[in-house]
Formats: sequence, C-alpha cells, structure tokens
Amino acid sequence: MVVVMKTSATQAEIEQVVERVRTAGGEAFVSPGELRTIIGLVGDTTRFMELPLSQLPGVENVIRVGRPYKLVARELHPEPSVVKVGSHPVDRRTVTVIAGPCAVESEQQAMEAAHMAKRAGAHLLRGGAYKPRTSPYSFQGLAKQGLEILAACREETGLPVVTEVLEARDVDLVSSLADCLQIGARNMQNFSLLKEVGKAHVPVILKRGLSATVEEWLMAAEYVAREGNMDIILCERGIRTFETATRNTLDLAGMAVAREATHLPVIVDPSHATGVRELVGPMSRAAVAAGADGIMVEIHPHPEAALSDGPQALTGDDLDRLVDEIAALGASLGRPVSGYQREAGRTPSMGWGSPQQ
Amino acid sequence: MVVVMKTSATQAEIEQVVERVRTAGGEAFVSPGELRTIIGLVGDTTRFMELPLSQLPGVENVIRVGRPYKLVARELHPEPSVVKVGSHPVDRRTVTVIAGPCAVESEQQAMEAAHMAKRAGAHLLRGGAYKPRTSPYSFQGLAKQGLEILAACREETGLPVVTEVLEARDVDLVSSLADCLQIGARNMQNFSLLKEVGKAHVPVILKRGLSATVEEWLMAAEYVAREGNMDIILCERGIRTFETATRNTLDLAGMAVAREATHLPVIVDPSHATGVRELVGPMSRAAVAAGADGIMVEIHPHPEAALSDGPQALTGDDLDRLVDEIAALGASLGRPVSGYQREAGRTPSMGWGSPQQ
Amino acid sequence: MVVVMKTSATQAEIEQVVERVRTAGGEAFVSPGELRTIIGLVGDTTRFMELPLSQLPGVENVIRVGRPYKLVARELHPEPSVVKVGSHPVDRRTVTVIAGPCAVESEQQAMEAAHMAKRAGAHLLRGGAYKPRTSPYSFQGLAKQGLEILAACREETGLPVVTEVLEARDVDLVSSLADCLQIGARNMQNFSLLKEVGKAHVPVILKRGLSATVEEWLMAAEYVAREGNMDIILCERGIRTFETATRNTLDLAGMAVAREATHLPVIVDPSHATGVRELVGPMSRAAVAAGADGIMVEIHPHPEAALSDGPQALTGDDLDRLVDEIAALGASLGRPVSGYQREAGRTPSMGWGSPQQ
Amino acid sequence: MVVVMKTSATQAEIEQVVERVRTAGGEAFVSPGELRTIIGLVGDTTRFMELPLSQLPGVENVIRVGRPYKLVARELHPEPSVVKVGSHPVDRRTVTVIAGPCAVESEQQAMEAAHMAKRAGAHLLRGGAYKPRTSPYSFQGLAKQGLEILAACREETGLPVVTEVLEARDVDLVSSLADCLQIGARNMQNFSLLKEVGKAHVPVILKRGLSATVEEWLMAAEYVAREGNMDIILCERGIRTFETATRNTLDLAGMAVAREATHLPVIVDPSHATGVRELVGPMSRAAVAAGADGIMVEIHPHPEAALSDGPQALTGDDLDRLVDEIAALGASLGRPVSGYQREAGRTPSMGWGSPQQ
Repeated sequence: MVVVMKTSATQAEIEQVVERVRTAGGEAFVSPGELRTIIGLVGDTTRFMELPLSQLPGVENVIRVGRPYKLVARELHPEPSVVKVGSHPVDRRTVTVIAGPCAVESEQQAMEAAHMAKRAGAHLLRGGAYKPRTSPYSFQGLAKQGLEILAACREETGLPVVTEVLEARDVDLVSSLADCLQIGARNMQNFSLLKEVGKAHVPVILKRGLSATVEEWLMAAEYVAREGNMDIILCERGIRTFETATRNTLDLAGMAVAREATHLPVIVDPSHATGVRELVGPMSRAAVAAGADGIMVEIHPHPEAALSDGPQALTGDDLDRLVDEIAALGASLGRPVSGYQREAGRTPSMGWGSPQQ
Repeated sequence: MVVVMKTSATQAEIEQVVERVRTAGGEAFVSPGELRTIIGLVGDTTRFMELPLSQLPGVENVIRVGRPYKLVARELHPEPSVVKVGSHPVDRRTVTVIAGPCAVESEQQAMEAAHMAKRAGAHLLRGGAYKPRTSPYSFQGLAKQGLEILAACREETGLPVVTEVLEARDVDLVSSLADCLQIGARNMQNFSLLKEVGKAHVPVILKRGLSATVEEWLMAAEYVAREGNMDIILCERGIRTFETATRNTLDLAGMAVAREATHLPVIVDPSHATGVRELVGPMSRAAVAAGADGIMVEIHPHPEAALSDGPQALTGDDLDRLVDEIAALGASLGRPVSGYQREAGRTPSMGWGSPQQ
Repeated sequence: MVVVMKTSATQAEIEQVVERVRTAGGEAFVSPGELRTIIGLVGDTTRFMELPLSQLPGVENVIRVGRPYKLVARELHPEPSVVKVGSHPVDRRTVTVIAGPCAVESEQQAMEAAHMAKRAGAHLLRGGAYKPRTSPYSFQGLAKQGLEILAACREETGLPVVTEVLEARDVDLVSSLADCLQIGARNMQNFSLLKEVGKAHVPVILKRGLSATVEEWLMAAEYVAREGNMDIILCERGIRTFETATRNTLDLAGMAVAREATHLPVIVDPSHATGVRELVGPMSRAAVAAGADGIMVEIHPHPEAALSDGPQALTGDDLDRLVDEIAALGASLGRPVSGYQREAGRTPSMGWGSPQQ
Repeated sequence: MVVVMKTSATQAEIEQVVERVRTAGGEAFVSPGELRTIIGLVGDTTRFMELPLSQLPGVENVIRVGRPYKLVARELHPEPSVVKVGSHPVDRRTVTVIAGPCAVESEQQAMEAAHMAKRAGAHLLRGGAYKPRTSPYSFQGLAKQGLEILAACREETGLPVVTEVLEARDVDLVSSLADCLQIGARNMQNFSLLKEVGKAHVPVILKRGLSATVEEWLMAAEYVAREGNMDIILCERGIRTFETATRNTLDLAGMAVAREATHLPVIVDPSHATGVRELVGPMSRAAVAAGADGIMVEIHPHPEAALSDGPQALTGDDLDRLVDEIAALGASLGRPVSGYQREAGRTPSMGWGSPQQ
C-alpha cells in the first residue's frame, strides 16, 4: 500500500503514519517530495488494509497496491485449474458448450431442449428451476419439481446438469439433485449464499454481477474458495452501461483480464449479455476467439412460446450451427470442442457477422 | 403495450399479432403506416407482458407502456403513506434523521454512537450487526451479539433501531430484536429475501441497488408489498458510474422521480453514496432541498479507529452541525425536523459548499 | 508518482527504474516489500508523467499521485475567483441565476423570454444561436442572426448575454457580440476550441462532458487557463449513466468535489441534466443547498411550440416561483440571490418535493 | 411514433393530439385503453419528431419508433458499401488491417513503424499528426510536419495513410496530404467538423464516442453523409463504463448491431479500447470473429520510449504474430486478409487467451 500525505502534512503527521504501520508489524518507507510526501508500506498488506490510515491527520489518501484475493489468484497458483462437472472437465485446453432453456417449464419442454443440446454436441445441460425475475408477476420457476425434471433429463441424455440456486437454505437440496450450481449475477455479492456454496461439495458457476468490477468478481470467488470449495467456474454475462441496443454490454476484455488474473476457468454467456438471438452466434465466436474456456447459451424448442427470455433463445438448428462454428473456429486456434464431430452435410453458417452480410 | 412491426411485415403477420392478443382477452388497434405498422394493445397489460409477442414473425419490437408496479404506485394510491418505526412516523411532512455506526463493533462503541445520535436530535438509530463486505478477510459483523447490543442501545436512549438483514433465514431473528429491517443495495434483487421480509410484520428500508433503475427499485418494493408488508421506506444511496472521485454517484433526480412515482417515503443515504465525510453535509442538504423525506448517515465516536467505512463517518460534532443545518433548511421549505430544538450557542456551519469556501 | 514493481521483478529492474528517474532529474525512493517493491517518485511530476516508466521491464503499473492541473487548482490559489460577466460578478457569496431559451428561434420569442428572465430576477440571459443537435434533420440555430437578436435583447433588458460557440473559427465573431461564451458538453474535449477560447478576452462557461470525470473537466479548464483566460465558470449538467428515467444523471457530489478542488465558480444546469420540467425546481434547490454558485435554466414563452428541448423548458410563472424558492433557500444558507426582491403577494411554491406531494 | 396519454387524459386532450398530427400532414390512430389511451402516428415521421407533442396537455410521453437515420441505414440500402482508401478497398468480404504509431514523433520513428506495418501485411498506415490530449502539458503532435512525414512514409512503403483531423479549418490541409481522415471519439459530436468532412472528397474513419449510443454514432455518420460524403468507415473503440481494469470497455455487440443497421464497413480499434498491449491480440481476434471488417492497432518501434500511449503499442514482432492469427482465423470464417502470405517458419502464437495460458 501507499499512503499519500497532504501538501500541508507536518513531519509529526508523517511520523504518526510510520508509527502506526510499525505497531501493526509492517515497514514504512518515506519518500519526502517537494510538494507532498509518499509513504510505501511493506509487509502483510491484508493487515494494513483494515488499518484506518486514511483517517489519520495529514493523510490525503491511501492507495492499495497488489491484489486483494489470494486463493483464486494465479500469482501464487500458476497452473490452470480443471473443474470437473459430472464426468466433463471444464479446462483451458478445450471449449466447453453449455446449453439449455432459461427456465424449466415442463417435463416435455425440458426433455426436448435436452435432446437438442445433446444432438448439437453440448457437454452440459443448463436449466432454471428457481428463477430470479424483476417482476413478482412473472413466472418464478417450478422449484423442486424443476430440479426433478432436470435430473430426469440427465438420466435420459447423460448430460450433467447446471442450475441456479437462489438462497443459502436451498443449497443442500439443489446440490443433491444437480451436478453444478450456478450463482446468478444478482447474487454475486450475496455473501451468505457464497459462503454456503463454499461449504458444498459440488462445482459452481459464478456469474459476474451487472455492475461488478473484475476485482469484485474475483473477491466473490474468494468467498467461495475460502470455505473450501475450489471448483469454481467464472462466467462473464455482460455489464450494465448506458447502451440500450443490447440488454447488457458483453465485456470480453474483462473476461480476458479475469482469465489472466486467476487459475480458474472463465466462460461466457452471450444470451444474457445481449438479449438478442442474432447476437448469440457472433458473441459466442468472439468469446472463443478471445480465449474463453466455454460458452453457455439458452435454447428453447419453441422460443415463441417461452415463459421467459424467448427473444434470446436459440432453436435446435441455431444451436447445431453455432456448435459447428465454434468447433471450426476453436480448431483453428488449437482449442477443440471435445467430442465434436461434424455431421455429414452440415456446413457452419454465420448469420450476423458473415461476409455475406 | 405497443407492437412495432417490421417494414417487411405482411398483412397475415399483422393479423396474427391481433389474433394472439384477442385470444389472451385483450384488444388490439392497428395503425397502418407507410413504412411500418404499429399495433396498440389495450386491456390487462400484465397478461400481455408474458405473451412472447416479440417472437412472432414480422414483429420488430414490443414497447411496454405504463408502469409494471401496482401496489407501490402512486397512480392508484394518491395519498402519501406514513411508515411508523417504533413510535416515530416517517412521512412526507417532516424530515427524518437516522444516524448510527456502519458496524456495531462493541457495546461501548455502539452506546457512545447512540448517545451522539440522541443528542443531535436523530429519530432512529442505525447500526450493522450483519455486514456485507467485498472481501472475506474484512470484519463481518457481530451477528446476534450485535443485535443485542443495538437492543440495549434502544433501551438506554429510546431510539428505535434499524439494522440490515442479509438472508431470508435471519428475518425472524432480526425482526424480533429490531424495529426496522434494512435491505442493502447488494440485496435489492435478492428475491427470496424480499419475499421473506414481505411476510414479516416490521417496517423495512429498501436501498436502491448499485446498478438498479428507478423502475427496478420500485419492482423490488412491489415484491415486498405483494406479500402483505406495505411498511416500506425507499432509500437512494448512489449508483455506480464511471466517476471515481466519489464512491458512487448520488442520484437525487432518481430519488425525486421515485418519490413522484410512489406513495412510499423516500430517504437518502449520503454516506454510502459518496464515501467522503466532507460530502455528507452538502449532500444531506441537497437531499432535503430536493424533497427527500429523510437522511441516513454514518457516525462513529472514533472514526480513525473504525473497523469499516471510517472515511465517511461523522463525529458527534459533525452530526450536531448537520442536524442544525437540515433543520434550518427544512424550516425554510416548510418541512421541519420533528422534535428539533437548537441548543443555545450552536450555530449551523456549512463546511464544503459554504459561502466562505 | 508511485511505481509498483511486479512480484517477479529483479534487483536490476528496480535499479533501472531508479536510474531513469534520476536521469530525468527526479528522486526515487525504494520500499522493498516481501511480495513486491514500491518506488516513490519525488520532484517535478509533470516531467515524470511523460516518462514511459510502465514500459520498463519488471514494472507492473504506475500510479499518479496528486493533481495534474495547476492554474485552476485551489491548492496553489486558495482565494476563490470572481468572474465578471458584463457588470454581474459570478462569485461564491451569492447565487447567480442564468435563464433563457434553449435556442433563439425568432426576435419575438427571444425578447419575450428575455423579459421573463428579467422580471423573475435572473442576472444573465442565455440563448443558443449555434445549436449542436444529434440529428442533422433538427433545427440547427439561427447562427449570426441569432447573435444579433441576443444583442438586441441585452439592449432592451440590460441582461448580459451567454451563448454557445461551436468551433474555433467562430470565437472572434461570438466574442464580439456576447458577454460570455459557453462551451457545451459535447465540446468539452474539443481542444482546438478550448485553446481558441483561452486566447479570447471574454469569460466562458465550460460545461462538463457527458462522460467526463471531474479531473478531465478541470483539465479542460486548464487548457483555457493556460492560454491566458482565467475567467472560467464550470457548469455541471449531468453525466451519462444506465438510468433512463432522466436524460442524464445530475452529479451534485461531483459538482461539490470540483468546487473544492478549484478556485473557479461552479454552477449547475438542471434543465439539461434532467430533461424533465418538473425536476428543474427540485434540482435547482438541491444544487444551491449543495453549494453551487449559480443555476442555469431553460425557459420558453410557449414551451409547447419550442423548436428544441420543449419538455424541459420553464414558463415565466415557473421561473418566478423558482427564483423565489432559490432566494428563500439561499437566504437560509447565507447565500443571497443578489438584487432579489420578492414581489408582494407571490409565495414560493415547491411542486415536486414539497410536503404536500 | 406513439403518443402515450396520461391515465387522467380527457377525450378533448386526445382529440387535440390527433388534430395536431393531422394538421402536420400525418395520420393518428387511437387505441382507447381502460387505464390509458395510446395513439399511433403514421406518415413522415421526421416531421412529427419536431412536433412538441409531449408538451400538449394530457400527454404522458412520446415514444419514437423506427430509426432516425436514413442515408447510412441498411433498411433502404441493403447492399454493403465498399470504401476505397487509396487503392485498398475496405469491404465486408475481407479483413482490413490498419497499423501505425499513435503519434508521429519523428521521421525516423514513423518510417520504422511504416516498415513494420508493411512487413506484417497491413493495408493502411495510421499515425497522428494532431493529437487530442487530456492534458495541455502532454505532447500535442507535430501538426503539418507530421502530415509531411506520413506522406513520405506512403511514398516509401506504398501504404495509404490515415490520420486524425481535429477541427473544421484543418480539413482542407489534411485532406490534401492524407488518403483517409479520422474523426476521433472526442469529436464524434463535433458537428462543425462532421459537416466539413462531409464536404471533403476523401474517405473518413468515424470513431464512436466514449459515451455514444450506437444510434448516436450512426446519426453522426448521417451528418457526414448528408453533406455528400458516403465514404465512411465506422470504428468501435470502447465505451466508458465503471470498469477500470481496462481503459474503456470494448463493445463488440454494439459493433455487430451497428454493422447490421448500416451498409457501411465497421472496424475495431482494440488498442484504445483496452489500453493494454496484452489485450490487443485477444480483442483483435474477437473482433474478427464477431464480424468486424477490419482492425486498427497501434505499433511503435520502441514502445518504452513512446511519447504517447506506449503501454498499448505493439512491437513489430507482436504485429507479425497478430496478422498471422487474424489471417488464420479469418480464413476459417471465409474472410481473408487480402494479400496475406505467411512467411515461412512463422507460426501464429496467441499470448493471452491461448490454451497454454
């Protein structure tokens, strides 16, 4: 850390800062400037972080240096982590594809979607049983029944299942039925939930909050890790900005910064990031090209009848094409979609972003 | 609602939209334009909102008209609501002052702060027992012990107590010891918590989320109201923007828009909005001038030793001056600080924003 | 400035940084940490700012300390500046009121508006002759003819005139006809224009850019000051955020931060900040309560026929009431509206934000 | 357009709106709802846009439908445009590479950079002679001398030259020496400059403003087009958000939305968007994968000595690798880098975002 003194700070005020730091077991180096003095703090910075140095007389401000997270930081764990969901490893050598409906609406709808995902070559099935909705008058999900339907879909297709958990007291139940938990964007700083998921023995996908910095996102992961659960997959899903042409603004550079800062896998959700079906293809391609370790997309057998987020859901054909594209692109970058085999007669098509358009 | 058709939409596609709306029990009026056709939807719009009209062929987009909240809307409840916290009514005729430490750190610290609040003329005491902190390595609050300390402070000073509740399963406990719950900015869309608080029989202060629109904020209040709890106080506490000179950007116009849209009282938290002690005074004055029904500020007997948010905490003297200012200002606007009597010899001072500065 | 070295930085890399700083005439103090080393730089920081230190091997990042502006900084010029526009001093002891139409549309409209401003007690008349419009198909202003109309209004009412200048080559013409130039939000970083205005001998109102930090705003003022023109009035007019309930988000805390950082007067434009007529009153009151040195509002004799920005324009009656309110409020804070005398029989009313509402 | 009436609107107020629209030559269709009435407006909407309908009594708000730009809209010009810069066509079938130094610092530096660009396979050379800098104390560019150096570089390498123009009165001079003008982000709504460039007979790269919506960006292009210059290339370069890990937030979805909405080519500048050298590669790949028609990157023969933006400049080797990657990726998507031939022995490497990392 660095303490910046005011132009008007006295020698006694400078010494008081040095004293406080030494008392806390650190070392302080003074750089006496003409206009203002800077004090460099050295030692166990987590201890200094809690010191109210900025409150001492003569202090202008205190600048934190270095990263506040440890367990999820790459700095001390250079080797990339592999997170196993069911039998599928989410890693940095391959591109993982997760697909499924926004909400589980019925057994038939979910089963149809699961078969769509399986056919296209997805590795994991996603589906919401508990739905966080802006309006209390919107469909809120099938809850436990939805979890059971997802388990039945796994039975039938063999795809491990990812589903969102909304509160701490549901973690046990959801963990017992799903292969991977999801913490949604709105809950990224629901610290009770983070701690409870940290005690569970299932992997978790942690979405970035709408207005969370990359650092706050990694601090949220640190909450989970600190309770003992290191099977964390980060998921970028767009941040809130002034632009209204898309639902959120997909921050692929933020994804890349996070992926560099941590050893955990980082994936991208282009469906929620954009809210526009035609952008899911281009943004999935962009995510993989930028180095994302996977994508998570929404599909629906009948988007025009979807109970939530229909405008961004892909059809089965859309998903087939998307996986074809991702596989072709990944191959050119040395990052295969594992298990992928192009069906004879299918050629990847590009929609928005193609040379024809 | 309004459905905007694509330039290329056919007559059949237009008719399909009309048909779907009628089937759902609504009425659809077609405005056939040269370039594009617009369809006005009339009837029970909550039913249409769930119709996936934007997925129908030929539809460019669907525009919602009117407000999605009902119970908290002023439109149908023109009379302002009064929310009673303990014996203190939070209303639109007076300015309510809430003060207390960010976190309860010890009985001594809390009690000192409570006496500071009482002396200055505050009506309610705030204090955090459960603390949502960005870092898992930061002080997380005294939990139940903190609640008991707050209850002791109420015993001693007579000030009703406001404290944050972080998760659904704590609502009963916190309700039993506090006079008013607080839902923090990070939990504004923690829908499980909102519903649980909606079932409780205590008033609640609902803070606006860091990246929540005014409409989303009111929808969060609607969640609470829908479960039967109408004793809701809204609290603007700054939104996240690109500006880094302050911790957040206080949105007083958003506060005024919310206050116009709802019958509930709306207050302002200038401490978290700015994160800078010297701005708490000017922003409190501004809030009252803009029509806020109260302010909530952080105080600490020894800010330089605070375990959290020291840089924004006021001292007892600061608070005395602030209440003096607010009282003088409120008087000139016809909105008294109830029970306020200026102590002889004390003159309001203005700090930042004063003519001298 | 502070140079933060990477965890992996070698001793030689640390020495290279020290060497580069010394060569440039500065002094470097090394704080050797366990995890990483920090180097404090002391001396003429403007010289270091141009050094590409962050490019040297082993450097993680470089943190600037202190403020990059000088001439407009309060640090070295503690005395508040007074900017005289015509005969009216814009200062920190009184509240200046500037009013007028968004655009000069005709001699009759401008003259009516000027009389409205005069009657209400405004000190300066604003009006746009050159209009920056998002669409090329919108009304672009009367240009030179508009300037002449404004000059005629000044002739008739005695109010000095403020008007926007859009490009460097118009500065001479506009300076010759107006009493005060205005640089609009979109041009805040039009450096050619800033430099040209800096060479002119008329005061200037410099609006904050839609996405400008307070620091960038002050740096824009520094451009003007550096060319010799110190008669600068800063004007906060809202920043762009995700919130769509108002046109922009008025940043009163940013205004207060700027006012503390500089010796220049700082005013507020609540009309453009909100885009909503009913918010102009509450936000004007809030601005004055927060310490703003003046307000600038849009008026129109017939808002329903305005060629631009009708939805935010006040009528003459609105303006009368607004000035009454501001005067009452300012009086309670020790900051009078100079020359103001309440007309018999007129009582200030508050609209949005009043106890009745 | 759609006019939404207030709940309290009377029949007479509804009729007044209809009347105003008819008088202006349009047609108005009334949808009488239980709670509120909606009026659909049909006809020449540009005429309605100027009508102050929102000012009429009983009107709640007015919603614009459709797009306000015409000449640059794809709706009426479905065929993609090709913009020729010197002999190089910027189109949608190939990927254009533009490279060069942020600022022209000296003949030697510019010439070295030009040779780096040429060797790597770039099609156009960029370089700044006039530099918009936040601080008046920063290097401001070599002006006319810089333009002459760029012309000499073109002479030597054959690469057409792109350079920024900062103000209307420089357009003639810059046009006479460069092959393509650039309008920077800060000048995107400098309407005088847009109009002047619209009258010039050279192509222009129009960067998106830091806080401009896609629609405002296209409206800025419409200003240029309306004066007769249709040779416009749009360039996404990041928007301003709360995230500070990168200089700006690259909005690739916004790029894709713009590319769908217009017939003009759209390119991406990953250097300014991120401000981080290690992100230029991943974001260039992402841009091409998302469908961008080209990339513009900053290079420098000696980044550690650069007078501006050193932290984001690529070296010659970096650029070689980047073009290799883009070419491989483009080939897999059917969008070649025209004229590209991989040098024997060079294998594309990926840095950040590679499977190894």
